[in-house]
Amino acid sequence: MPKPAIPTRAKSLETFANPASHRDYQIHMEIPEFTCLCPKTGQPDFAVLTLDYIADRLCVELKSLKLYIWSFREEGHFHEDVTNRILDDLVKATRPRFMRLTARFYVRGGIFTNVVAEHRKKGWKPAAKVELAEFPAQSNTRG
Amino acid sequence: MPKPAIPTRAKSLETFANPASHRDYQIHMEIPEFTCLCPKTGQPDFAVLTLDYIADRLCVELKSLKLYIWSFREEGHFHEDVTNRILDDLVKATRPRFMRLTARFYVRGGIFTNVVAEHRKKGWKPAAKVELAEFPAQSNTRG
Amino acid sequence: MPKPAIPTRAKSLETFANPASHRDYQIHMEIPEFTCLCPKTGQPDFAVLTLDYIADRLCVELKSLKLYIWSFREEGHFHEDVTNRILDDLVKATRPRFMRLTARFYVRGGIFTNVVAEHRKKGWKPAAKVELAEFPAQSNTRG
Amino acid sequence: MPKPAIPTRAKSLETFANPASHRDYQIHMEIPEFTCLCPKTGQPDFAVLTLDYIADRLCVELKSLKLYIWSFREEGHFHEDVTNRILDDLVKATRPRFMRLTARFYVRGGIFTNVVAEHRKKGWKPAAKVELAEFPAQSNTRG
Amino acid sequence: MPKPAIPTRAKSLETFANPASHRDYQIHMEIPEFTCLCPKTGQPDFAVLTLDYIADRLCVELKSLKLYIWSFREEGHFHEDVTNRILDDLVKATRPRFMRLTARFYVRGGIFTNVVAEHRKKGWKPAAKVELAEFPAQSNTRG
Amino acid sequence: MPKPAIPTRAKSLETFANPASHRDYQIHMEIPEFTCLCPKTGQPDFAVLTLDYIADRLCVELKSLKLYIWSFREEGHFHEDVTNRILDDLVKATRPRFMRLTARFYVRGGIFTNVVAEHRKKGWKPAAKVELAEFPAQSNTRG
Amino acid sequence: MPKPAIPTRAKSLETFANPASHRDYQIHMEIPEFTCLCPKTGQPDFAVLTLDYIADRLCVELKSLKLYIWSFREEGHFHEDVTNRILDDLVKATRPRFMRLTARFYVRGGIFTNVVAEHRKKGWKPAAKVELAEFPAQSNTRG
Amino acid sequence: MPKPAIPTRAKSLETFANPASHRDYQIHMEIPEFTCLCPKTGQPDFAVLTLDYIADRLCVELKSLKLYIWSFREEGHFHEDVTNRILDDLVKATRPRFMRLTARFYVRGGIFTNVVAEHRKKGWKPAAKVELAEFPAQSNTRG
Amino acid sequence: MPKPAIPTRAKSLETFANPASHRDYQIHMEIPEFTCLCPKTGQPDFAVLTLDYIADRLCVELKSLKLYIWSFREEGHFHEDVTNRILDDLVKATRPRFMRLTARFYVRGGIFTNVVAEHRKKGWKPAAKVELAEFPAQSNTRG
Amino acid sequence: MPKPAIPTRAKSLETFANPASHRDYQIHMEIPEFTCLCPKTGQPDFAVLTLDYIADRLCVELKSLKLYIWSFREEGHFHEDVTNRILDDLVKATRPRFMRLTARFYVRGGIFTNVVAEHRKKGWKPAAKVELAEFPAQSNTRG
Ligand SMILES: [Ca+2]
Ligand SMILES: [Ca+2]
Ligand SMILES: [Ca+2]
Ligand SMILES: [Ca+2]
Ligand SMILES: [Ca+2]
Ligand SMILES: [Ca+2]
Ligand SMILES: [Ca+2]
Ligand SMILES: [Ca+2]
Ligand SMILES: [Ca+2]
Ligand SMILES: [Ca+2]
Ligand SMILES: [Ca+2]
Ligand SMILES: [Ca+2]
Ligand SMILES: [Ca+2]
Ligand SMILES: [Ca+2]
Ligand SMILES: [Ca+2]
Ligand SMILES: [Ca+2]
Repeated sequence: MPKPAIPTRAKSLETFANPASHRDYQIHMEIPEFTCLCPKTGQPDFAVLTLDYIADRLCVELKSLKLYIWSFREEGHFHEDVTNRILDDLVKATRPRFMRLTARFYVRGGIFTNVVAEHRKKGWKPAAKVELAEFPAQSNTRG
Repeated sequence: MPKPAIPTRAKSLETFANPASHRDYQIHMEIPEFTCLCPKTGQPDFAVLTLDYIADRLCVELKSLKLYIWSFREEGHFHEDVTNRILDDLVKATRPRFMRLTARFYVRGGIFTNVVAEHRKKGWKPAAKVELAEFPAQSNTRG
Repeated sequence: MPKPAIPTRAKSLETFANPASHRDYQIHMEIPEFTCLCPKTGQPDFAVLTLDYIADRLCVELKSLKLYIWSFREEGHFHEDVTNRILDDLVKATRPRFMRLTARFYVRGGIFTNVVAEHRKKGWKPAAKVELAEFPAQSNTRG
Repeated sequence: MPKPAIPTRAKSLETFANPASHRDYQIHMEIPEFTCLCPKTGQPDFAVLTLDYIADRLCVELKSLKLYIWSFREEGHFHEDVTNRILDDLVKATRPRFMRLTARFYVRGGIFTNVVAEHRKKGWKPAAKVELAEFPAQSNTRG
Repeated sequence: MPKPAIPTRAKSLETFANPASHRDYQIHMEIPEFTCLCPKTGQPDFAVLTLDYIADRLCVELKSLKLYIWSFREEGHFHEDVTNRILDDLVKATRPRFMRLTARFYVRGGIFTNVVAEHRKKGWKPAAKVELAEFPAQSNTRG
Repeated sequence: MPKPAIPTRAKSLETFANPASHRDYQIHMEIPEFTCLCPKTGQPDFAVLTLDYIADRLCVELKSLKLYIWSFREEGHFHEDVTNRILDDLVKATRPRFMRLTARFYVRGGIFTNVVAEHRKKGWKPAAKVELAEFPAQSNTRG
Repeated sequence: MPKPAIPTRAKSLETFANPASHRDYQIHMEIPEFTCLCPKTGQPDFAVLTLDYIADRLCVELKSLKLYIWSFREEGHFHEDVTNRILDDLVKATRPRFMRLTARFYVRGGIFTNVVAEHRKKGWKPAAKVELAEFPAQSNTRG
Repeated sequence: MPKPAIPTRAKSLETFANPASHRDYQIHMEIPEFTCLCPKTGQPDFAVLTLDYIADRLCVELKSLKLYIWSFREEGHFHEDVTNRILDDLVKATRPRFMRLTARFYVRGGIFTNVVAEHRKKGWKPAAKVELAEFPAQSNTRG
Repeated sequence: MPKPAIPTRAKSLETFANPASHRDYQIHMEIPEFTCLCPKTGQPDFAVLTLDYIADRLCVELKSLKLYIWSFREEGHFHEDVTNRILDDLVKATRPRFMRLTARFYVRGGIFTNVVAEHRKKGWKPAAKVELAEFPAQSNTRG
Repeated sequence: MPKPAIPTRAKSLETFANPASHRDYQIHMEIPEFTCLCPKTGQPDFAVLTLDYIADRLCVELKSLKLYIWSFREEGHFHEDVTNRILDDLVKATRPRFMRLTARFYVRGGIFTNVVAEHRKKGWKPAAKVELAEFPAQSNTRG
């Protein structure tokens, strides 16, 4: 069995300056590679994370986010707890106007669990949404 | 025919302390293995349950929820009634800020029936929802 | 050709007492086996009906609903008319807090027609909806 | 209730000359509007029919096929029997090189039943199929 | 080449009396067979139209709608313009409480264009919508 | 809790005479309501069964099949074993030319298991299949 | 109404030299914009064409193919006939080793019709197909 | 290797007069062919753009939009930045009442990123949306 | 951070006696929770495994398979290599008549990689497959 | 506009030793990020490539494959030609037992074009395929 290189895993989250901070706009990130351990049994747990946020002055840097996600690999966490914890870390690092984290965990005991948590900056209000017609991709070409 | 072990089925629902009770966040659970009996004919009925809730001080413990669901296996219940009854039991055990139970029953007489019931804690108000763009999974990678 | 038994078809709709009338909850029924005739040409028409309602004191009984639906088999009705007529009959039988009937008719002349009609009990108001995250079935298990 | 016009329903199947009888080519027809009665109970049965054939000298005429399908509306037939019977009628009318009829019936007793029957002209052999890559519609445009 | 019969194409739209004018209800029509010409190049354009309306005293008659749609076959029109024009014609003919026309055009230059336009009768207000749970078709039967 | 009527569950499988035994044709049945118990732990197991067969002189009767399926509800069986056992019972009852049983079990331990078993009558040979083009439903109407 | 430019429509099909004629490889083209007229009634007919071929010395040029397809716009043709006719024209222009044309026509009279026709060069034999595992797009990334 | 012709790529965006400026209506464009370079590494980046807008006096001309999109091919841009930049250019060219740009980028580092940005004309208010029932395409024809 | 219990991970694969070894039947297992490390960089890799086999005298025991899969969590392996290695281990443990392992790895460098490997017992031959019609789940109930 | 770093693009394809050359197994790679130019007009062309191969002694190295794909970005190539050319380069580099390249190009002139080309090593024969039942992902868990 080959010896793996020493994994680079880090709790630190790097940021960069929001290039359009004059505007509320949405950044959406899908992170399918989350895994940690069950604190009771040590068995592996898996989840897909979705991060949506409206940056204030900082955006989260992609590569450090990846390494942060890897850092949970050998840690024990309950579903409800770890979702709130990751949200807290991301909020602390980027101080966003708004942030929502969605975690969809793999089946355990025949039951599927998702957790959705949000942070809103004090005093921040979303503009009323302009509701437009939406279309499935390429619904205007037939086949 | 092998003899089955004595099934462990229990009406009791265990709970644990909400790890982030300072925040309204959503817990979503899909429970595909519900079955009971028709009180008139004794014939098996099947349903998929979906539970969504915003915990207050208690979360429902996964394993006890599984055993609770199994406890209906040999009981007779009508669709509209059993959905409200399960919601009542879950509310009593966890005293949530909000809870919604959705039951999708298998076809009977060529007709498909779903039942959706909710409980709201007195005085609790949901924060106004921040409406974001949503995306089908991996809509930003082509194939 | 074998002789069919005499079909049981009835306009009457039976009801039973709402088991949870203290609560506004939704009953959803999918009825794929609707057929009637075109009043002009006598040609068969087909539709899928979807019934959603919030019962007040009465729920519609499943088997009588099935027979009621069959009763249209040899009658002539226009699309817009028959949808409103069935809604009227269901409202009269169950006096619901709210009821919506959706009829999706098969293609005619290359055009697809759906009709959606609603009834609201005078003075009834729906609670403001609690907007939760929704998930496609089993979106938290991968494949 | 309006009186329906007298329905036009006919067992006869009209044909026209195959415009390319020098070649084995496939005609595929989807017929979603089949209904008959259960011979035991008189209750309505529904099915979607799919007809695939390789014509010899005759093709089945579309409008007469529609009327033929309607002719079953008030007749009693078992699933396995009626599928074979329709195939027999179509074979008798068109004498095809090959014909396959697929009937997909609506759910009864919680069980879904499909029936597939074929006829091959004596001595007729299909050419060995040229297997090509197949693609879902518009798989080469992204979205 | 066979000579086609003279096509029946007409700009006139016929109507019939709304059978349930005491109620705001929705009529939805999908019209996949729209084609016209590009006014610059004469090349054929294709679109799928969707019509949604709440009738006032008149409903649009299906067959005349089909012929009206065919009448564009040899005319030149830009995408944004023709959508608004068809809406104007339908409004003029039926004087609806509300009408929405959606046109999804086929790809041109690698870009897909949809246009959505609406008309509201002066003074008409929609009732506040009752938000119900919605389900994909047959989500309560597994497979 | 209401007392369920005594369930009718029977191991016996009834049959009827194949109405087209001069022809090899396929009968396909989807049976989503199978449940039994784990012989080790007594916990409920669930599966969707699919039955495909080419009858010889007997077809399986729908209602007795339903009751037979229900008869497993309180019995303990392993996945691989119960699939082969049901196939054996069906073969014994109907003596088919060919029969295939597919069982798709619900997830256990994060792993999904399906089992597929077949029986062929001695000396029976399927006709070489005529390979036709296949189409997704309604692929020839756009939307 | 603006006057359309004079459409460019041509029956001629241009070709170019096959850049890899030493190899049997498949060219697959999806052509969603076919329309002609019904020879009996003059009503517009629509179809989606799919062309698959293995070129010999000539490939069909894309732009001339588009113009050729447009040339049917004002001509009257029956479904079965026009599919075979287009195949004949394409074969005559390109003399391919193998060619298959699939036409999926819009619904008429509630029935959906597809036609599939093929040409094989005399003496040409396809290599036996190497059967590989196939995957839906991005089935190896979860979401 | 053949020498490519000199590509026509232009930052300029052409417009034409809004044909229905008396009405707020939505124009939706899907633009799947966006590519630029990573400013750090020079590696190609890809995205699908979706543009939704309510024109004021000007609409964006399709062909110039295509050329504008191509103009990014050899430029280096970060995801969050380029989305806001394209929106700014489109707003400057057309001065719309409302505009939303959605960019869905291909996966990098195992993470999928989408960006959604909007512009609203000062003082412009959308009419309150009329909420109608929506249907998946052809949900009223079965198959 | 809670301390995880010591994980139970084991290379050993337990087996049980095939309950129907007189018959060739297929066992299909979906295993979504595979992860190992990149031997070069130490970064986590993820895959979904699918195992299909025809047992001879032994079947693989579910729980030991789960633990075996977990045992790769901290090991370094290349995609092509680890797939063949797992197949080898499973073959050694169960000595099957036939076994196929499919591994679908998560995206790396914008490229998605799957690996499919098979083992066949010397002298074993599959029975010629009986080709039946196949149906998408519940294609015989409309919606 | 930021200055992009100098892109790394290379025609060379690196390889590594096949870790299981004693066995015919399939490697499947999806490559969504291919773009080149039209040799006539210089306009960008896009395609999704799928590579399937059975290695002999060499496997293609992932990173060099990515760089090779990028090397086409500023080159002009016709669809049919570039697909065969890439296959030729990959065959030359890896000398596989079998290789199939599938290219699905974006729409041009309203027509979608795919090209599929294969190489087989002289004297190599695939083992006869063992046909197993196949299942859509998670078809054995309901929702
Ligand atoms: Ca489980
Ligand atoms: Ca919305
Ligand atoms: Ca039924
Ligand atoms: Ca029709
Ligand atoms: Ca919503
Ligand atoms: Ca039933
Ligand atoms: Ca095939
Ligand atoms: Ca184009
Ligand atoms: Ca909605
Ligand atoms: Ca589990
Ligand atoms: Ca029609
Ligand atoms: Ca296959
Ligand atoms: Ca990656
Ligand atoms: Ca990547
Ligand atoms: Ca097959
Ligand atoms: Ca085009």
